[in-house]
Amino acid sequence: MSDFSHLSTDGAARMVDVGTKPVTERFARATALVRMQAETIRRLRAGPMAKGDVFQVARIAAVMAAKRTAELVPLCHPIPLDCVEVSFDYVGESTVAIEVAVRATWRTGVEMEAMVAASTAALTIYDMCKAVDRAITIEQIRLEEKRGGTSGHFQRQP
Amino acid sequence: MSDFSHLSTDGAARMVDVGTKPVTERFARATALVRMQAETIRRLRAGPMAKGDVFQVARIAAVMAAKRTAELVPLCHPIPLDCVEVSFDYVGESTVAIEVAVRATWRTGVEMEAMVAASTAALTIYDMCKAVDRAITIEQIRLEEKRGGTSGHFQRQP
Amino acid sequence: MSDFSHLSTDGAARMVDVGTKPVTERFARATALVRMQAETIRRLRAGPMAKGDVFQVARIAAVMAAKRTAELVPLCHPIPLDCVEVSFDYVGESTVAIEVAVRATWRTGVEMEAMVAASTAALTIYDMCKAVDRAITIEQIRLEEKRGGTSGHFQRQP
Amino acid sequence: MSDFSHLSTDGAARMVDVGTKPVTERFARATALVRMQAETIRRLRAGPMAKGDVFQVARIAAVMAAKRTAELVPLCHPIPLDCVEVSFDYVGESTVAIEVAVRATWRTGVEMEAMVAASTAALTIYDMCKAVDRAITIEQIRLEEKRGGTSGHFQRQP
Amino acid sequence: MSDFSHLSTDGAARMVDVGTKPVTERFARATALVRMQAETIRRLRAGPMAKGDVFQVARIAAVMAAKRTAELVPLCHPIPLDCVEVSFDYVGESTVAIEVAVRATWRTGVEMEAMVAASTAALTIYDMCKAVDRAITIEQIRLEEKRGGTSGHFQRQP
Amino acid sequence: MSDFSHLSTDGAARMVDVGTKPVTERFARATALVRMQAETIRRLRAGPMAKGDVFQVARIAAVMAAKRTAELVPLCHPIPLDCVEVSFDYVGESTVAIEVAVRATWRTGVEMEAMVAASTAALTIYDMCKAVDRAITIEQIRLEEKRGGTSGHFQRQP
Repeated sequence: MSDFSHLSTDGAARMVDVGTKPVTERFARATALVRMQAETIRRLRAGPMAKGDVFQVARIAAVMAAKRTAELVPLCHPIPLDCVEVSFDYVGESTVAIEVAVRATWRTGVEMEAMVAASTAALTIYDMCKAVDRAITIEQIRLEEKRGGTSGHFQRQP
Repeated sequence: MSDFSHLSTDGAARMVDVGTKPVTERFARATALVRMQAETIRRLRAGPMAKGDVFQVARIAAVMAAKRTAELVPLCHPIPLDCVEVSFDYVGESTVAIEVAVRATWRTGVEMEAMVAASTAALTIYDMCKAVDRAITIEQIRLEEKRGGTSGHFQRQP
Repeated sequence: MSDFSHLSTDGAARMVDVGTKPVTERFARATALVRMQAETIRRLRAGPMAKGDVFQVARIAAVMAAKRTAELVPLCHPIPLDCVEVSFDYVGESTVAIEVAVRATWRTGVEMEAMVAASTAALTIYDMCKAVDRAITIEQIRLEEKRGGTSGHFQRQP
Repeated sequence: MSDFSHLSTDGAARMVDVGTKPVTERFARATALVRMQAETIRRLRAGPMAKGDVFQVARIAAVMAAKRTAELVPLCHPIPLDCVEVSFDYVGESTVAIEVAVRATWRTGVEMEAMVAASTAALTIYDMCKAVDRAITIEQIRLEEKRGGTSGHFQRQP
Repeated sequence: MSDFSHLSTDGAARMVDVGTKPVTERFARATALVRMQAETIRRLRAGPMAKGDVFQVARIAAVMAAKRTAELVPLCHPIPLDCVEVSFDYVGESTVAIEVAVRATWRTGVEMEAMVAASTAALTIYDMCKAVDRAITIEQIRLEEKRGGTSGHFQRQP
Repeated sequence: MSDFSHLSTDGAARMVDVGTKPVTERFARATALVRMQAETIRRLRAGPMAKGDVFQVARIAAVMAAKRTAELVPLCHPIPLDCVEVSFDYVGESTVAIEVAVRATWRTGVEMEAMVAASTAALTIYDMCKAVDRAITIEQIRLEEKRGGTSGHFQRQP
């Protein structure tokens, strides 16, 4: 087998067989950062945004995208999710931080669901703010933690 | 109207009306970076990956995601795309760079399609390499350039 | 926790965690009414419709929509359905009655699947008849019965 | 041809050919009512709901469903929408009223998009409130107005 | 450029740029054959099938799949279709023939939409009959005719 | 009950109830043939195709379509797949052979997933080669083998 489980030794892409893995509790947490001008953040906090609407739209987009991960990422397994939670925070004067937690009771992990949800939340924020700040950058989409499964507990080192 | 065109003055989300905009040529280019261990890159270049298969899978995922942007990002308009191109490059010894160019002949821009495609390519690379390097980070998804439409030409400043 | 399980105490939408619920047999039955002119019903019964084709199209639409409930209703869990059945009846001289029954063996109920299917059947009938009767109204989409799960048996009171 | 344009004379379902119709401005407005217990409405207005979150989730669901109408209603044409707007109002002490307006510049009308969006908003409200009031009923999904196209202006009579 | 327009000279897959092509009327017609035991055909004609229900389900599946061609075939352009028609015929004593005609007014052809629809109709017939005849074979999915576009008229030679 | 399990005795289509079936290991293998001119095959083997890119695109399309079978084939059950594998071979001088193997641990079989994947791989090859050989024919999509479930082992006879 290749080092990369999604490729056979001759390089053909494939869905890894998870049929022999036990059904266990799976958890993954991913984060993303959206960097914008301080002025954009200021407007976000002062305007109708103050009511949280941009974040509410981004949250819904994230939850819906998590459920469709296997349609977007070609070799992901369809996983019936138990739970998706999405939260937002302001960090410093020019950054929005996104955190997504996903749970499932299944044969394979939910890292990709958490990553896809964090990414989609960030893209939705970009979409809603781009008319006032087209240079906004999505930074640092990454897995923070995962639990469950034979590969064990992963906790990102600071 | 709110500063944020996707929100009415009372904060309700909405699809902006593009019905009065002229149909013109639209172009957008977005990039993303995927940072991994040098050892992971080395394996990518040496193994079956040498044949480009991880990138080919990521490219297909990106093209297909671009076409479904309006399903993922809640307030995006459906846009019949003319063209999507995706390329990959190695930058230094630990980074893969992704570039996506999208074109359409339509009433609204294709920035989100380019951003969604770049993001999906990065997520697919993460998915295929995560078994060997779970700490891989997606960095700097951003719009590099856009042309067409009343907001004119955007070119990111270095 | 909020009274409304889909909202946290600060009003953020979320998918409720069903991971600790047992897998049990779930059943839900929903109905909808489509009210039209008596003349439209008469044509439905006399024309090619007599062969049941409008209802067959509506039935297929309902079954397919039931399977995609979690894509439409943002906070619904994906549920692998065991069975969807859709039936139609004429009530009086101006109403079509739709009934949908859904079953699954899962951690959460299938009420939304039954409601979405009934609604989609009604919308499809509207679509196919609107050229002759644009004022057709969809009335009374409602849950009639549900079984399974900790909330127990629900039977609508007459 | 059958009275019902979606059926051939022998009852076979079909997508009506719109290729010869001119591209014009299309508008449709549909409404739906969601009837619940006065106590449920009271909680909606007092709780975290006061911030409008249930309606915001329902609004996003409605916009996203409008864009996917042709995937749900079998014989609908895919229509690239210009605009979708969704608003909510309390009517009396036990009813939520939903109004959706849709616009497109295309060969065929957007009635179904407005109806699907209104229906999906209602279903989403049901989903978020069903834990406290399972008997909530969706009532009166109907087209209020349409403009554009050869069939002319339709305005529902009071 | 490669002989194969979907590949660049270095073998990378891409969506061909259709932005400079004129919008013209497009037509494509594809067929498929489903071969089964004579006994299965006999039952199809005698049973509830006599009412045409298997074909009606297959027809709806075909129309819906045609609309989603760009989601299934990675490098296809999204095309807003004007019309899809699907018909069925018995050929000899063991074959069902499927014919699909698709029309659009667009920058690129609808061959793939017709092929996808014919294939999906055949798969749906297989699905509905496989419990009585698992060895049914889908044969000869092929383009019969195409019109419109710079590549001109194609008519399959007998 | 009708001979055809997807139809009730009055001809109404329905999803068969699988709720009482046990969860077991399911396997299905399907094949398809794509027949083209010898010259097209020669170019496939000599050009950028030599790197396997057409097959890689077709493989990804097949895996992704397998996961969406229940969205395409109206009465199929949603099945969370364990594994999808797709391989290609040249047969003689004018034929590409496709083989798909699918596994799941579920209440119903995965024949349709294998058939849909084989069909989509063939359609994708057609799409990528049609500019040089529009008369390419997809032939013989068929189930070769299935295991698991009460209907037992099926192995196609030569």
